[in-house]
Amino acid sequence: MNEHAGMLLARIREQRPLIHQITNYVVMTDTANVTLHIGASPVMAHAPEEVEEMVQIAGALVLNYGTLSTPWIEAMILAGKQANKSGIPVVLDPVGAGATRLRTETGHRLLRALKVAIVRGNAGEVGALSGSGGEVKGVESVGATESAVDLARNAAKQWNTVVAVTGARDVISDGQRVLGVDNGHEWLQARTGTGCAATAVTAAFAAVEPDYVVAAASALAVYGLAAELAARKANGPASFGVAFFDQIYNLTPEMVAEGARIVELV
Amino acid sequence: MNEHAGMLLARIREQRPLIHQITNYVVMTDTANVTLHIGASPVMAHAPEEVEEMVQIAGALVLNYGTLSTPWIEAMILAGKQANKSGIPVVLDPVGAGATRLRTETGHRLLRALKVAIVRGNAGEVGALSGSGGEVKGVESVGATESAVDLARNAAKQWNTVVAVTGARDVISDGQRVLGVDNGHEWLQARTGTGCAATAVTAAFAAVEPDYVVAAASALAVYGLAAELAARKANGPASFGVAFFDQIYNLTPEMVAEGARIVELV
Amino acid sequence: MNEHAGMLLARIREQRPLIHQITNYVVMTDTANVTLHIGASPVMAHAPEEVEEMVQIAGALVLNYGTLSTPWIEAMILAGKQANKSGIPVVLDPVGAGATRLRTETGHRLLRALKVAIVRGNAGEVGALSGSGGEVKGVESVGATESAVDLARNAAKQWNTVVAVTGARDVISDGQRVLGVDNGHEWLQARTGTGCAATAVTAAFAAVEPDYVVAAASALAVYGLAAELAARKANGPASFGVAFFDQIYNLTPEMVAEGARIVELV
Repeated sequence: MNEHAGMLLARIREQRPLIHQITNYVVMTDTANVTLHIGASPVMAHAPEEVEEMVQIAGALVLNYGTLSTPWIEAMILAGKQANKSGIPVVLDPVGAGATRLRTETGHRLLRALKVAIVRGNAGEVGALSGSGGEVKGVESVGATESAVDLARNAAKQWNTVVAVTGARDVISDGQRVLGVDNGHEWLQARTGTGCAATAVTAAFAAVEPDYVVAAASALAVYGLAAELAARKANGPASFGVAFFDQIYNLTPEMVAEGARIVELV
Repeated sequence: MNEHAGMLLARIREQRPLIHQITNYVVMTDTANVTLHIGASPVMAHAPEEVEEMVQIAGALVLNYGTLSTPWIEAMILAGKQANKSGIPVVLDPVGAGATRLRTETGHRLLRALKVAIVRGNAGEVGALSGSGGEVKGVESVGATESAVDLARNAAKQWNTVVAVTGARDVISDGQRVLGVDNGHEWLQARTGTGCAATAVTAAFAAVEPDYVVAAASALAVYGLAAELAARKANGPASFGVAFFDQIYNLTPEMVAEGARIVELV
Repeated sequence: MNEHAGMLLARIREQRPLIHQITNYVVMTDTANVTLHIGASPVMAHAPEEVEEMVQIAGALVLNYGTLSTPWIEAMILAGKQANKSGIPVVLDPVGAGATRLRTETGHRLLRALKVAIVRGNAGEVGALSGSGGEVKGVESVGATESAVDLARNAAKQWNTVVAVTGARDVISDGQRVLGVDNGHEWLQARTGTGCAATAVTAAFAAVEPDYVVAAASALAVYGLAAELAARKANGPASFGVAFFDQIYNLTPEMVAEGARIVELV
């Protein structure tokens, strides 16, 4: 599994898939950069006149509603439907689901309207969306009542998708299999948009690996490993950010094979 | 006063208030990061369908119209009115007031429609809004005809709010008391969004200290102190930015008690 | 030519022109910072109610449609027409032209509606717009069928403007003269928005030098030189970004006179 994650990183750099992102204003620069550093190519496009055309040349589509508004949600649905028609994986980041009705309902609406390949969220967001009682304050997860394993597995069954719940241990499930990822660093919490950037990286892996449980786990292991290595060189969250982005770019398949910590939980 | 500023920093980290920000596209990433590094929690939300709900779980609301447009102004008013009803402090950053009629009129409109706790601007912006003749070129203050002390005090009386005029010496007044803050570094001028980030930090302090003169002065002292300490490690404005954000995160109440330079001017 | 580029840098820092930018969400922070570091002053404004007023106090206008939508295109046309009336140079960055019909048509529409001083794009974008067959994937140039010299010269003739095609060697032409710039570093490709930031710097030079071939070549030489010097201090694209932005700020006219590599090709 860990060697395979390294192989997928090599595949991204070879194929250089275009990752079409309809995402929030706060993280656009960071997610574009992370997409480039991992070896893929980002494009941000939200105009209803072009999203269907753009997504057809993409390897994956990211829908992230961190600063949502009605026109952007409509664009997400247009792009997502075309992605479904063209067989392009859709990766959903339900930022702040649970914090307001609009955010929770938008998550439900997107999950109903689209075939989503992977949902990447924190425990509060996934819990709020799946109805198992997550708590979210703004865009921060305060907690969940279920264990992450139950949460991910049950939500995946409910939505017929892969669910990746990120936290100290990331948990990924398609409703049957459950993988855990033990890579990561606490400083990821001290920067904005690190969850959103993990979603962009997950989309890059989904563009080259059709087993989305494996794609998501590999992405989160690579991402978390880069964070671990970067933390050694940092004096705070900003210098961590610089070292982290450098590290994503400098990671090799060999480093991933050695450092990734993906475990089979179920 | 300086010890109290350190205590407020500790209080932010303990309470971790949510800071709801309706702000401009240029600075969103930086203000979200600064909000996290100071110890609070940022959320950006501007959809009319959710701003009233979001602001009710916030500790403070930032209204910053640096890249304003009609729908965003309407969202600011909706959120601001709800904040007023719920007793949540509103912090206004009138970016570019004086540069165009739209910006000046938007400032007037927000000050009429809402009870604003703190206005944080440069001398040109505050002068243009209060009618005392500030000059603004784009979003840069070119100068003001009054002294900063008169400017802050008179504007505070006129608007029945606290006004913080930032510059080489920051001046804060509620129309009676006037405090000065002598912390800061010239490299703050060489980066975009450092005024906007000061406003976000001011909102975090206003969330935990109901005396808004003290909250604003403490915020600007902490912010300026971090800049001073960071400048020693920087080779230019970008490495300054990294060191500055690290430093905000690494500041302790003790460092603030020792390094803050808040003075009573009147 | 290279000494003149250094002189223009000094002129920017003396005159501190305001650069009005209607640009995309991904790069706004970076282009604002680069504008400040080169010595000019940025303002981002897109509301139809204010763009005409704002552009009249500007030294140059940047139109960049990297995250375009109908209201923003209309604002670009309003601002551009006023810039034309007021004799303020308009610099166009046709991000992703060729990737979707909307992007190609928007480029054509802006070139028809406005007198554009300089078009700054990659070979794929300029080729797609000029009909010579460029290929663009998302916002990345995949290739062009003509040589960069022919591409720049023919597009410049066709649009009656100056065209700057950036790549390993930048090529700048007004349809007659053709200049090349050999400064730059490959790490510029590993970061998002480095083309957009080059456009912002080009606008700063166009604000102080009415010979737009010279302005564009000087801007790209200065920009590329900063990248070369920064690359020596970097461990990856993020630390490169920090060193690069510091270097733009720290460049002196003397360093430019010595390090710029502008060559007359035709």
